[in-house]
Amino acid sequence: MNMTTGNRDAMLALGAEARKAAKALALAPADQKNHALKAMAAAIRGRAAHIGEENVKDISAAASKDLKDSFIDRLTLTPARIEAMAKGLEDIAALPDPVGEIMTEWTRPNGMAISRLRVPIGVIGIIYESRPNVTADAGALCMKSGNAAILRGGSDGFRTSAAIVACLQQGLREAGLPETAIQMVPDSDRASVGLMLEGLNGTIDLIVPRGGKSLVARVQNDARVPVFSHLEGICHVYVDKAADLQMAEKIVLNAKMRRTGICGAAETILIDRAAPGFLKPIIRTLIDAGCAVRGDRVAQEADPRVTPAAEEDWSTEYLDAIVTLGVVDGVDGAVAHIARYGSQHTDSIVTADEATAEKFLREVDSAIVLHNASTQFADGGEFGFGAEIGIATGKLHARGPVGLEQLTTFKYQIRGTGQVRP
Amino acid sequence: MNMTTGNRDAMLALGAEARKAAKALALAPADQKNHALKAMAAAIRGRAAHIGEENVKDISAAASKDLKDSFIDRLTLTPARIEAMAKGLEDIAALPDPVGEIMTEWTRPNGMAISRLRVPIGVIGIIYESRPNVTADAGALCMKSGNAAILRGGSDGFRTSAAIVACLQQGLREAGLPETAIQMVPDSDRASVGLMLEGLNGTIDLIVPRGGKSLVARVQNDARVPVFSHLEGICHVYVDKAADLQMAEKIVLNAKMRRTGICGAAETILIDRAAPGFLKPIIRTLIDAGCAVRGDRVAQEADPRVTPAAEEDWSTEYLDAIVTLGVVDGVDGAVAHIARYGSQHTDSIVTADEATAEKFLREVDSAIVLHNASTQFADGGEFGFGAEIGIATGKLHARGPVGLEQLTTFKYQIRGTGQVRP
Repeated sequence: MNMTTGNRDAMLALGAEARKAAKALALAPADQKNHALKAMAAAIRGRAAHIGEENVKDISAAASKDLKDSFIDRLTLTPARIEAMAKGLEDIAALPDPVGEIMTEWTRPNGMAISRLRVPIGVIGIIYESRPNVTADAGALCMKSGNAAILRGGSDGFRTSAAIVACLQQGLREAGLPETAIQMVPDSDRASVGLMLEGLNGTIDLIVPRGGKSLVARVQNDARVPVFSHLEGICHVYVDKAADLQMAEKIVLNAKMRRTGICGAAETILIDRAAPGFLKPIIRTLIDAGCAVRGDRVAQEADPRVTPAAEEDWSTEYLDAIVTLGVVDGVDGAVAHIARYGSQHTDSIVTADEATAEKFLREVDSAIVLHNASTQFADGGEFGFGAEIGIATGKLHARGPVGLEQLTTFKYQIRGTGQVRP
Repeated sequence: MNMTTGNRDAMLALGAEARKAAKALALAPADQKNHALKAMAAAIRGRAAHIGEENVKDISAAASKDLKDSFIDRLTLTPARIEAMAKGLEDIAALPDPVGEIMTEWTRPNGMAISRLRVPIGVIGIIYESRPNVTADAGALCMKSGNAAILRGGSDGFRTSAAIVACLQQGLREAGLPETAIQMVPDSDRASVGLMLEGLNGTIDLIVPRGGKSLVARVQNDARVPVFSHLEGICHVYVDKAADLQMAEKIVLNAKMRRTGICGAAETILIDRAAPGFLKPIIRTLIDAGCAVRGDRVAQEADPRVTPAAEEDWSTEYLDAIVTLGVVDGVDGAVAHIARYGSQHTDSIVTADEATAEKFLREVDSAIVLHNASTQFADGGEFGFGAEIGIATGKLHARGPVGLEQLTTFKYQIRGTGQVRP
């Protein structure tokens, strides 16, 4: 991929501006940031018609390409979705400001007082697909947590995002904050992504990719700066022999079918080999709800409508009304299966046996492990974090829902009275 | 760089073994890990003579090369240093185990109880220079925090490290833990570093480099897995016009001269332009202690022994009895200078004015900021963390001293009673 010198210079200038804005934003009080967020919401409501018109242009252009309906749906902004976007900004304004929070403090024997407090990370690059609502969400979450944002959305949503960013920048101006705190990459040249992954000459501290597997894989492979990655959610529900069958059916159904397209949707159901009576009713519940079941030999024998699962099915994120189902040898078998095929995202056990549950919660090495609850709770809102920028499946810094707190780092402040080290 | 297929296979096998060991170690109780650490210390004491002999072989081989005295000094193990290494392992045994600690917990309106608790990261690769004590320290810190370690030390210390690792593995065996929890890269082929930086086929979760700038730069540039980086420590002491001069002299002297070779040693002294009377005594204190002073025009005019500082001096980590000294326009000038030339490591202000101090502590974006205390306190031990594996200058996950806690991550455990998401 090539980039003209002009574009490259424009990108580097944008990085330098973001770095400057980050310094101002890091010191901005919560009130000022909240003022900006409310002004952004007002601007979006005030220009809703314009945003809608730009969105129609994007959709028309996209319609001439051979894109999936789901892609067009994610690109589309209805008046209700525009209002939801504005409301989302107000919700972020209502969240507590993590910046400046004292995480812990202690005094050393020599009298020095040490405190560890939350501070912004600096400049965050967000690389995402053609989902205009991410423009508002991501920009606002970065800003509220004291970070400058560089947004690079999918090219098919370029006009819509530009209209939204204009509203975000108007909000920043109204609150007396630098409008460069939220910037959009000025062109949809793919090379701009490469420059961001290199860190824009040291101006980007963190990249957050939001999108499908191929986008995330490219970001992880090419990034020279830290990345919060969201790989796939191959989530499991394990039904233990000590489960209440009715509860198990309810949780399996919800975990798989409430919404099949989210990362916390279950993709595999594991049933205790010692509870053969659970197979038929659970399979029937899924099939009755419109879910295709691919299973191992035991599952196929339990219900002739189950089709054979191939080896790769056990590690497939369907994001659809399809599930893989099989038996395992108790909780140990479930833990081993999840370690082998899972993605360390979210896994649940259904059992009335506390000791078995605790073993599962301890031994499954996933960001989120649940007992007697649906995997679809893997969501920042459901955790009480307010808005989230995604779910991190990596282990460093952020793991699980990425909300405001995960968009901060910390520093140590030490207050002395002339101490020197002996 | 090339690597024979045999070596490559050996490295991948080592990664797979580490991953297996990490699973066992993650679930090991504190008592068992502490038992292993004490047995390691005993093994090191029992084989001190053998370790010493292997060290003599390494030193003899290194002596034939044209290496710096400081390099040979770091490579050398005296009986006192071997005893200190054993004692260090016992000190790590005495530290609290971070694994399993509940960081926070809360209950959602639907009754689900969420807790966030510390868990090990997994497999940590340590890449370091020829300092045999790092072998024991790093291996033990990783193990105590529930992680498997893959150690790759400098080739000049290979024999010594191998003798130490044998003791660590004996301790693991005696405690019933897999000896593969601490492994050493079997050859000193440089290509093994490359394989580690690629993550050894997904088996390495984190790389911690310990060494000079060129090593860290290579690791940061080539790593495909997360890295805790320690770049340089360009630490500043800013002496404000409201400083107590006697305290300022004492802190400046300690920050620069107590030990000049550590990363928390000050490299630049900034003096408030509004306190011209501070220049002569502070410069004299430094020169009297044997420190060469490179300064700006004002410093040169204050004392003719000050030589001119070149532009690059302001961003040089001397690690020696040399300092750069100049005037700035008050605390704002100091903050701007540090933002431009510093390395976000550790910076201190000396002042009796609380408001000025708070401004500095707030606006300097470094891992550690101090008021009226020496920069040489930038050390895990001085923070009360016990042993540390280094100081992180990156902002993600770990920042500042990296002790046991920073070698862990967390997961969410959710306990429900049949909750499904509406």
